[in-house]
Amino acid sequence: MSGLIRFGISMEKELLARLDKEIVKRGYPNRSEAIRDLIRNQLVELDWSQDDEEVAGTITIIYDHHVKGLSDLLLELQHDHHEMIISVMHVHLEHDNCLEVMVIKGKASEARDLSSRLIGVKGVKHGKLTITSTGKGLK
Amino acid sequence: MSGLIRFGISMEKELLARLDKEIVKRGYPNRSEAIRDLIRNQLVELDWSQDDEEVAGTITIIYDHHVKGLSDLLLELQHDHHEMIISVMHVHLEHDNCLEVMVIKGKASEARDLSSRLIGVKGVKHGKLTITSTGKGLK
Amino acid sequence: MSGLIRFGISMEKELLARLDKEIVKRGYPNRSEAIRDLIRNQLVELDWSQDDEEVAGTITIIYDHHVKGLSDLLLELQHDHHEMIISVMHVHLEHDNCLEVMVIKGKASEARDLSSRLIGVKGVKHGKLTITSTGKGLK
Amino acid sequence: MSGLIRFGISMEKELLARLDKEIVKRGYPNRSEAIRDLIRNQLVELDWSQDDEEVAGTITIIYDHHVKGLSDLLLELQHDHHEMIISVMHVHLEHDNCLEVMVIKGKASEARDLSSRLIGVKGVKHGKLTITSTGKGLK
Repeated sequence: MSGLIRFGISMEKELLARLDKEIVKRGYPNRSEAIRDLIRNQLVELDWSQDDEEVAGTITIIYDHHVKGLSDLLLELQHDHHEMIISVMHVHLEHDNCLEVMVIKGKASEARDLSSRLIGVKGVKHGKLTITSTGKGLK
Repeated sequence: MSGLIRFGISMEKELLARLDKEIVKRGYPNRSEAIRDLIRNQLVELDWSQDDEEVAGTITIIYDHHVKGLSDLLLELQHDHHEMIISVMHVHLEHDNCLEVMVIKGKASEARDLSSRLIGVKGVKHGKLTITSTGKGLK
Repeated sequence: MSGLIRFGISMEKELLARLDKEIVKRGYPNRSEAIRDLIRNQLVELDWSQDDEEVAGTITIIYDHHVKGLSDLLLELQHDHHEMIISVMHVHLEHDNCLEVMVIKGKASEARDLSSRLIGVKGVKHGKLTITSTGKGLK
Repeated sequence: MSGLIRFGISMEKELLARLDKEIVKRGYPNRSEAIRDLIRNQLVELDWSQDDEEVAGTITIIYDHHVKGLSDLLLELQHDHHEMIISVMHVHLEHDNCLEVMVIKGKASEARDLSSRLIGVKGVKHGKLTITSTGKGLK
């Protein structure tokens, strides 16, 4: 495990009061954790803005499983990228609609491409790429 | 299944050329599907901006499972909101880091609250709420 | 002027190293200023998520001034909301295209409405609402 | 002026009903204009994701003009990039706080750099880069 470094920062008292209010509301244990979260969030966006960075994330799609041939097509697309898709969870949201979420790991640019292809499939009603991190750079 | 309506729209030829280029790149089968996707995407954002709207989504968190007591705390928080969390998938990203993705369904405001609580937990390195739809309004 | 409060936070040394790298790249004078910026940014988003909060911002639109009646229509819409629009700047981007940026101050919900109306006008090619703060809550 | 092309698209009647409702709410004159707006919005984001693309935009900053040396420093930074900053508007938001909005035109990567530098200046309380287009590619 990595060592912790302690350092001081200064802040206007009104700004600190507003931060503390948010910290309580969101259930943060202390200021350090809240501030570290803000920093990590920006670093994740930075990683994803660089095409060759190894990142992790999820692709979420909503589709109607009654559409003929759709499941097969999605399965095929996923298998074509099996090295990037770690695992898939399928949820029956309603009678017609399914939600499928894939956990992915790979280069930022390739993750974006795969996401575009899946969301572009006819019958996929909505899709989103969620960017996060492998956690390695966020120790 | 719902009926399709066909209607005409007009567009400057340069704009259409750029749209068509993107359609090919993203593998859309035709213009209708690409345009429907843009519309659905905006409607999902609209749903999530209304606190009482029933929405679906995912919460993704990255954490180090070596942190003492963390898994138990996350499990407890999740159970406190079991009526909103449909299902959970856990992936071992690396030696230390886990990715957990929860599929959620409920009111937009409550989904946001749950997401804030989970991301605020000490030891959770990164977290994201992904908004999508139950699919009902996107027929 | 408001008093400064100094307090300590702790951070993993790898995370601090990445933060420091970004601080240098962006020209921040010190860690406090960088961290305050992250906090203020989140508070601004919070203000804008509450409809009745007094906020400031800008509305930017791109349009072709050759389109008949367009300037008059935009002027009229702006005058209808003169109490919210503090000032307007007009830039000739190219032979055909103008950029107009309005500085606005008012309730978040009304600012969003005005922005939607202006962006919806036929002939307006692109528009964006930029959210910021009156600065009062960011002391 | 460029020629208009007319083509047909098909859509589920529920989706069309929701689109039409939004069109009325936002004051769009017709479906074509609303759909063109969605398309242009995505193309602008695409342009800004390519570092060498010529783009337009605004940089908005909020600062306290009482902070000693701040105006001079901002002026100097702006002059160092005078070839990118087309024009500047300054608004007195309150007794202490100013809003300054710069209209910029140039390469996406350089615009982002300039924005980071300005927002990083000590005393700048909040800042935002707004991306739009020179309008050339959005005919």
